[in-house]
Amino acid sequence: MKKLATISIGDELLNGSKLDTNCNFISNELNNVGYETVMRLTAGDTKASILSSLNYAIKNADLVTITGGLGPTHDDVTKVALCDYFETSLKYYDDVFNEIQTWIVSLGRNPNILDKSQGEYPENATLLHNSKGTAKGILLSKDGTIVLSMPGVPREMKAILVEAFIPKFTSLSDERIVSLNIKTIGITEMMLFKAIHDVLSLYNDITVAYLPRHTGVTVRLSQRTLDEQRSQRYLDSIALKMKEMLPNQIYAIGKMTLSSVVGALLTKHHLTVSTSESCTGGLVASHITDVPGSSYYFNTSYITYSNEAKIKLLDVSESSLKEHGAVSEETVSQMLDGTLKYSGADYAIAISGIAGPDGGTIEKPVGLVYIACGSKTKKTIKRFQFFKDRIINKEAAASAALNLLRLEIIADYGE
Amino acid sequence: MKKLATISIGDELLNGSKLDTNCNFISNELNNVGYETVMRLTAGDTKASILSSLNYAIKNADLVTITGGLGPTHDDVTKVALCDYFETSLKYYDDVFNEIQTWIVSLGRNPNILDKSQGEYPENATLLHNSKGTAKGILLSKDGTIVLSMPGVPREMKAILVEAFIPKFTSLSDERIVSLNIKTIGITEMMLFKAIHDVLSLYNDITVAYLPRHTGVTVRLSQRTLDEQRSQRYLDSIALKMKEMLPNQIYAIGKMTLSSVVGALLTKHHLTVSTSESCTGGLVASHITDVPGSSYYFNTSYITYSNEAKIKLLDVSESSLKEHGAVSEETVSQMLDGTLKYSGADYAIAISGIAGPDGGTIEKPVGLVYIACGSKTKKTIKRFQFFKDRIINKEAAASAALNLLRLEIIADYGE
Repeated sequence: MKKLATISIGDELLNGSKLDTNCNFISNELNNVGYETVMRLTAGDTKASILSSLNYAIKNADLVTITGGLGPTHDDVTKVALCDYFETSLKYYDDVFNEIQTWIVSLGRNPNILDKSQGEYPENATLLHNSKGTAKGILLSKDGTIVLSMPGVPREMKAILVEAFIPKFTSLSDERIVSLNIKTIGITEMMLFKAIHDVLSLYNDITVAYLPRHTGVTVRLSQRTLDEQRSQRYLDSIALKMKEMLPNQIYAIGKMTLSSVVGALLTKHHLTVSTSESCTGGLVASHITDVPGSSYYFNTSYITYSNEAKIKLLDVSESSLKEHGAVSEETVSQMLDGTLKYSGADYAIAISGIAGPDGGTIEKPVGLVYIACGSKTKKTIKRFQFFKDRIINKEAAASAALNLLRLEIIADYGE
Repeated sequence: MKKLATISIGDELLNGSKLDTNCNFISNELNNVGYETVMRLTAGDTKASILSSLNYAIKNADLVTITGGLGPTHDDVTKVALCDYFETSLKYYDDVFNEIQTWIVSLGRNPNILDKSQGEYPENATLLHNSKGTAKGILLSKDGTIVLSMPGVPREMKAILVEAFIPKFTSLSDERIVSLNIKTIGITEMMLFKAIHDVLSLYNDITVAYLPRHTGVTVRLSQRTLDEQRSQRYLDSIALKMKEMLPNQIYAIGKMTLSSVVGALLTKHHLTVSTSESCTGGLVASHITDVPGSSYYFNTSYITYSNEAKIKLLDVSESSLKEHGAVSEETVSQMLDGTLKYSGADYAIAISGIAGPDGGTIEKPVGLVYIACGSKTKKTIKRFQFFKDRIINKEAAASAALNLLRLEIIADYGE
């Protein structure tokens, strides 16, 4: 495989105020056309820092991508560094500037916002079309290494890379990496490792990575290959063996999310779902509606944060709330009944918990969440003890709830 | 300032399947004790890749942090590379292993899950306590540069860095960087730049960065300083000047989020809010409840995805839905009335739009969203044309809605 190094430019990336997502996109896309990422660098907004990174990267790679450091708010420091490195100078391209101007006018915007410098590029560079913005991609090469410089704005970088660079400047090299994600929920990384490591280690021609999150652990299988389809079938067959070993914990093989798996089950069996949410505050419903086409199985949900709302919208009994508290088995059970009754949905989810940071007691600490899931004929209620962080608790509870629904539908209707 | 280089280890970071958040945390924390991040590197899970990165980083920094490549699922490749680089070898520490074993037992877990290798560390290393896991921090030094190696699991890295490394091994150096974020919404990066650049450039002793997102642009002011408090006051005074120039667009100076700003306004003026959401599917309510203490001003919300739910829960008129469609000024206006009526809240937000990818027409394209916001006495309805991506449209609409509420409360009650 050919070797790729990525360089991200930006003080805001270095000082920790902004998360870099460009490199992940670039690595994924170029991996599909035979590039393996061998290093990733982040450099500051100075010429010296960019040049040092470029010198180091170019020694180790066949292709170096640079993102950021272009445009008026960055003083175009990348263009200047490129000119230095490739011993050339900036040239003003009248036709490029006119093209940008025409494009800006076609969007109904004022062309006077443009600066003449936006028509300047290193002499000898190949310029790549940017369908989403004014800064072109810049392609230069030296000693057999190609350098591709793009703006840092993700949608512009993506347009240049996918529309202009990949179709014209890459060829499918022989070797590439094929990967497959096995997504689990309800099992810790260590337990998962213990459960599948011995079997997985028999396949000594694949690479295995464990990627833990608060909402579940993903196992990524990868293989270098000359035959993509054969490798895909091979990884699929291994993943199916894993699924036989952990049928409940593995919810997806491949790209599907927990919400889209649940959505596919609901669609397949012509079912609908509704939620009533206290501590998650609408997050479960939001996840459900992240899936295109969710209007086929999702009509309505109730966010009942206060006791009063639980009583008024879902018929939760006032005396039961007093006796057992809002965070209890009894309350989520009654919330579920009310949700099924008023929404008319086939399945419902009801959640109540203590998200934190305040509101915890010794008996009911922060992170305690009750989730009820079921239909008019069957109900499952589970107690979870999650973490100390409010946002993480909301995410963990939402995932656990969707997973309960998934298991419930499978138990009732099959996969 | 002292110079920091960070190295992240992991094929899953390089190949784009996992986002690296550790470096941002490390940069932020160490910046507070006088380190400036000069480079960031990501290396693969091999000894050669780690050694190459270490060699490059150590030339440019006073402190190099390494995260990842420790533990049984990574074959402890980092430990081996450190031994190579520092010309030492792994040594088994009985007391370390016993300590880990005791800790595991105290958590009620089985100590047999431990491997003897978890007691092995490079000879001569200083080991740093990890309150959240079994892998210790490893501190080594060479030619005046300190190397700190930590596990890749964020909570373990954070525990070692914040509890063990920073208090004992850093001293407040004289110079540091003080930063302040000015957060805006409802103005593009270019318009913002045009509006404030001339004034900001008069302050030639500060650095300015523009950080655009779909939900708004943040302007980050930074200054190197010997006097932290003085610099903070200085940046505060500049931010206040900006706020005078863009009173509506700047919603926060500092760390507050849009939801927490709205929450503070509601709390201050003893007001409550409720939402009814179609295309955002509960995301606005979820954002509102991300804020600790939101139960003081938030009781209930309605997710009315289908027309039927809009009619049943919020009294939206069936004939009006037929005439104008679900995505219209009329519909969100009626949703707002119903939400105010049934929730009893002082303010309400109502949203209906076409999130995509399907459902768009020429008159009502994907990304079209109507938002109504108001109280029983006053109502504002706005039409937005967002983007092509479903998830981004949900986020953009949720932020726009919270901002409408913010402006509405300020207009009625003041800041």
